[in-house]
Amino acid sequence: MAGKLYGIGVGPGDSGLVTLKARRILDRCDIIAYPVKVPGEGSVAFDIVRPIVDMEGKRIEEFVFSMDPDDSVRMNCRSKAIDRMCALLDQGNDIAMVTLGDVGVYSTYMYIDQEIRERGYETDIVPGIPSFCHGASVAGLPLMIGNEGLAIVPVAKENSQLLGNSLDNFDNIVVMKAFKSIPMIAKMMDERGIDRSKATVISNVGMPGEYVGPMDLTREYGYFTTVLIKKR
Amino acid sequence: MAGKLYGIGVGPGDSGLVTLKARRILDRCDIIAYPVKVPGEGSVAFDIVRPIVDMEGKRIEEFVFSMDPDDSVRMNCRSKAIDRMCALLDQGNDIAMVTLGDVGVYSTYMYIDQEIRERGYETDIVPGIPSFCHGASVAGLPLMIGNEGLAIVPVAKENSQLLGNSLDNFDNIVVMKAFKSIPMIAKMMDERGIDRSKATVISNVGMPGEYVGPMDLTREYGYFTTVLIKKR
Repeated sequence: MAGKLYGIGVGPGDSGLVTLKARRILDRCDIIAYPVKVPGEGSVAFDIVRPIVDMEGKRIEEFVFSMDPDDSVRMNCRSKAIDRMCALLDQGNDIAMVTLGDVGVYSTYMYIDQEIRERGYETDIVPGIPSFCHGASVAGLPLMIGNEGLAIVPVAKENSQLLGNSLDNFDNIVVMKAFKSIPMIAKMMDERGIDRSKATVISNVGMPGEYVGPMDLTREYGYFTTVLIKKR
Repeated sequence: MAGKLYGIGVGPGDSGLVTLKARRILDRCDIIAYPVKVPGEGSVAFDIVRPIVDMEGKRIEEFVFSMDPDDSVRMNCRSKAIDRMCALLDQGNDIAMVTLGDVGVYSTYMYIDQEIRERGYETDIVPGIPSFCHGASVAGLPLMIGNEGLAIVPVAKENSQLLGNSLDNFDNIVVMKAFKSIPMIAKMMDERGIDRSKATVISNVGMPGEYVGPMDLTREYGYFTTVLIKKR
């Protein structure tokens, strides 16, 4: 009988924020898998679960999903990874693929899940705590209260209009992937008369370069930087 | 020495989706507390943790936070609850207040946290998995991929413009508190030429009346109903 594939959200970075269900599945699966962009780069998600899971007799497998700009390189790489995964499932292995934060928030896993299901295998998804929930808790702020809405927008060229629109219309805005864009965000707030004190930068929590506080345009921020803007 | 107050997100409804840290704190705290609107109504959040926490010698306390339309009734009720909480902290009790989903997403706890801190006590927040992450995982759909944004908008009179704006501008929209509003959401999608098949209703997952599927305007939905609209 073929094994089953699990997509496991392991939360934002603290082993304590892994769920009971995630640990239970990781304890009993045959293989813990993680996606990488280049061979051997390791996995933050795997580092999170390593100290809390029984690794005795467990196989650890990396799967390469290239981010090459060439479509055919990416597709070829993905199809090789999926083929190998299916071979392992065919041998009866249950595979748990770990993913940072929540599985539904910008993860590679959802592409894999769809393709593996289309090939006739069973899959299951275990949600995890997304980074923006953790960030708000560290800052001691709610994401939203009452009937307020929340916009989540990653910094990207194609999103500058969406970000402006969100600043105009939402009470609460989470700007993701903001590490290089604090000055740009400050400028957009200035243009709209939103006081800069309404923004809290949440950067590299629990990692080197941790910073939680107001926007400081003179410093550099680590890769895991989110800005929470609360207009009220 | 005064005790400490913890705000604990217990996730969307499955005891397995409680985090290791939440359980650790609940196991060792003196009092498990939960907010209610009227005395004796019970707590879904408490029901989630009851089977997985060591309740031996533990005190369980409800705190009433009235939703009365009269401001003075609400404020008076809140201040009595906070006073009682402070008295328990003064006696050296660590209190863990449980909250459904994530603490930062529409919870009463954030108001309490702020006031308790202002009165000089120590508090800590443990994030949980919000319902919309769980809902997406049950539906087998990502909330967002690539550089897409996500709008989260609860149904409310004052939000009809915000919801329209979100449907116009975002790739992904989560509509919360949607149990009575499926026909209204369908109409707003029709007006914008967004095919109704782009919407997935996620209702009362793991509870009586569970439904995960396309918008069905002929049926009634339970209180915990979310609609996930993915335009792409």
